[in-house]
Amino acid sequence: MNYIQSYILEHKNRFINELIELLKIPSISADSAYKNDVLKTADAIKISLENAGCDTVEICKTDGYPVVYGEKIIDKNLPTILVYGHYDVQPPDPINLWNSPPFEPVIKKTEKHPEGAIFARGACDDKGQMYMHVKAMEFMTSTNQLPCNVKFMIEGEEEVGSSNLATFVKNNQEKLKNDVILISDTGMIANDVPSITTGLRGLSYVEVEVTGPNRDLHSGLYGGAVANPINILTKMIASLHDENNHITIPGFYDNVEELSKEERAEMAKAPFSLESYKKALDIDSVYGETGYTTNERNSIRPTLDVNGIWGGYTGEGAKTVIASKAYAKISMRLVPNQDWENITKLFKNHFENIAPKGVKVKVTPHHGGQGYVTPIDSIGFKAASKAYQDTFGKTPIPQRSGGSIPIVALFEQELKSKTILMGFGLDSDAIHSPNEHFGVWNYLKGIETIPLFYKYFTELS
Amino acid sequence: MNYIQSYILEHKNRFINELIELLKIPSISADSAYKNDVLKTADAIKISLENAGCDTVEICKTDGYPVVYGEKIIDKNLPTILVYGHYDVQPPDPINLWNSPPFEPVIKKTEKHPEGAIFARGACDDKGQMYMHVKAMEFMTSTNQLPCNVKFMIEGEEEVGSSNLATFVKNNQEKLKNDVILISDTGMIANDVPSITTGLRGLSYVEVEVTGPNRDLHSGLYGGAVANPINILTKMIASLHDENNHITIPGFYDNVEELSKEERAEMAKAPFSLESYKKALDIDSVYGETGYTTNERNSIRPTLDVNGIWGGYTGEGAKTVIASKAYAKISMRLVPNQDWENITKLFKNHFENIAPKGVKVKVTPHHGGQGYVTPIDSIGFKAASKAYQDTFGKTPIPQRSGGSIPIVALFEQELKSKTILMGFGLDSDAIHSPNEHFGVWNYLKGIETIPLFYKYFTELS
Repeated sequence: MNYIQSYILEHKNRFINELIELLKIPSISADSAYKNDVLKTADAIKISLENAGCDTVEICKTDGYPVVYGEKIIDKNLPTILVYGHYDVQPPDPINLWNSPPFEPVIKKTEKHPEGAIFARGACDDKGQMYMHVKAMEFMTSTNQLPCNVKFMIEGEEEVGSSNLATFVKNNQEKLKNDVILISDTGMIANDVPSITTGLRGLSYVEVEVTGPNRDLHSGLYGGAVANPINILTKMIASLHDENNHITIPGFYDNVEELSKEERAEMAKAPFSLESYKKALDIDSVYGETGYTTNERNSIRPTLDVNGIWGGYTGEGAKTVIASKAYAKISMRLVPNQDWENITKLFKNHFENIAPKGVKVKVTPHHGGQGYVTPIDSIGFKAASKAYQDTFGKTPIPQRSGGSIPIVALFEQELKSKTILMGFGLDSDAIHSPNEHFGVWNYLKGIETIPLFYKYFTELS
Repeated sequence: MNYIQSYILEHKNRFINELIELLKIPSISADSAYKNDVLKTADAIKISLENAGCDTVEICKTDGYPVVYGEKIIDKNLPTILVYGHYDVQPPDPINLWNSPPFEPVIKKTEKHPEGAIFARGACDDKGQMYMHVKAMEFMTSTNQLPCNVKFMIEGEEEVGSSNLATFVKNNQEKLKNDVILISDTGMIANDVPSITTGLRGLSYVEVEVTGPNRDLHSGLYGGAVANPINILTKMIASLHDENNHITIPGFYDNVEELSKEERAEMAKAPFSLESYKKALDIDSVYGETGYTTNERNSIRPTLDVNGIWGGYTGEGAKTVIASKAYAKISMRLVPNQDWENITKLFKNHFENIAPKGVKVKVTPHHGGQGYVTPIDSIGFKAASKAYQDTFGKTPIPQRSGGSIPIVALFEQELKSKTILMGFGLDSDAIHSPNEHFGVWNYLKGIETIPLFYKYFTELS
């Protein structure tokens, strides 16, 4: 690839400003109050793909938010890369912990991003990482260097489980036909330790509701005499882990792949400082399943976490009430071979079974997805590795991520192609958290690396 | 007392309308947003006491909401009754469960109140019950039948722990000097089973905060590897009760008075149907401490209930987050001899001790108060009993309540007089709950019974 560095240097400010405009739209898919903003973002993506040189761009309706599809087919005999990304973002809550408003992007320097980082909800996940691909495309088409065919599939429901994308993929297998799927929606170890994600965890996300008495009660008159749904909910949730932090749901571990000693030893070679990790989070100790290291706990082991809990009086001051209902949102991260639908069923059955008399329990599955592992001997992986070597000067480390992109397993099943996960964010970029950001250096490095993947993938194919 | 029934019949509509006007003011002491409304209510109480015939009425400043004090001293040689009540109300949350707005009173018939009940926050607790005393006073002064001296002390912070009233009482012992304290802020068994409350539970109310990582984290990248404050909070709360629903805080039961078999047998004679109780609450089973009946669990036994819990994402849809913090409001109802300040300390120490590594715990005491038991051989109790016999045609049953009026123990300590708890509400009146109401029949019956207490108390003194 010629001129790429000079092209980036020349257009750097425009690249940043275009991303900032995109980040200003609060495309929160989880909250229906933002519906118009999510739709507006889809329109903006369509225009950006047209400007980047796609021949055809469509906004494809689904039962939820639309999929933006774009393509440029230069020669049917050449390989086709399908780029997947998403234009929706996580809710910004808790909003009061943001140092600047989540949808008013600002660039600030940080310890890990001395050249500055863009602070905004979606900066890294995934507007920033998705937009790297749009700008890489722009470079390749405007300099006549696009070496193969390209298809873009940018969805608006990734943060709420991609349930309509599954249908879209199933119904458009011919249109989406490709030789490799390329996604930037993960991270890398550090700016000087490039890595490629080779595994993702699956996910089962449920909401539970515990109902006690048919109305809120005075805690003096009824306290101690009826089941308090909040107390019961805490007991039920607490019982989901044993004293070794193993999950107690019967059958939960049945299909969990146990890694060999050799594989675990290989994993342990990745650079990691427990002290820095604790310091960055301001915790005096890590916590988790007995018998596994921190990096194992958050990648090769399944987990169960409460993501939200609420019930009773949560306002200022005191209210002596026994709430009628208590709720929690609970997610389980799953490893390859654990079927998310089966795990959801196991959870539901178990949670209903452990409910004591005096309460009623309702379990509502939200969404889920399978885990994924990609081989490291594929053309795609090799092409990605060579691209990183060119731009980072180092061979990237293959690494399993603890996160989930539920749709990836479905892509392989429906489209029969492998996915390459080229992530340029850092774990410390606070995705899903207040003050999410994405390094300007990382953003531009992504735009520089992606065209090289196209080049090497075409050459190796 | 002469003419009382005809006086009530004649002025019934005005009595109801005056209470309705009072109920329209949202005097929520727990929420500072309602400060002006709370103060406005104090003004309204002042005017109503003046209209009822008090010679002196003052709005007495405190460090919080004012105490409205009124008096009519007719003869220093006659006994003095001190009436206590409160003009503040509980927050109306959860607001969406009210069938009519909490501060727009409506009268509707119910199964237990065939003559209609006034639905509004504070209808029973305590505006309605407090206002009975104002109207009883009006009757006695306007018909020249006030048999003794009377003092009114109506406060605005009962629902948030009466902390400034304690100082007010300590600083005004001479002004508040009395022979008996009369309060209507409890209930009775049923409209055809009058009862007088002879015991109240104490209270310790605390808020707990569990902090894990210094920011909200992505549950995929960090889940299973760091202590999740919500999971930890559920474990900590769950551990506060053992398998017999005994409270596990060391020393918690040290001073709990164990009632004799005979006393428990006496208690068990009060009319009670477990089936009706369960049906009214729509529960398939009661729940509580092993070895005690429902009526014992909510009166003579101490309890620990979570009144509110919150943390993480509680909005629509799903957010895969590990919250940085989780919170709960927890109250303990205490029995006589348990010192609330000591229990609060025991809770705080224990809760801090059981926190695992990886989280920080903060316990903030909100407020509290001692339990109280009143003797049934006092002049006050006898006068009350005779008053009920006259108006209900039945001897009232002495009954211990599970609720708390923390200030009552302090009254006895500071003012050296006993308190008589003449409550006219029903447990089903939903105080502290959505759709709080107070029977019109009960309201008028209270106004009819109170002057008789004055008469018999003066005669017996």
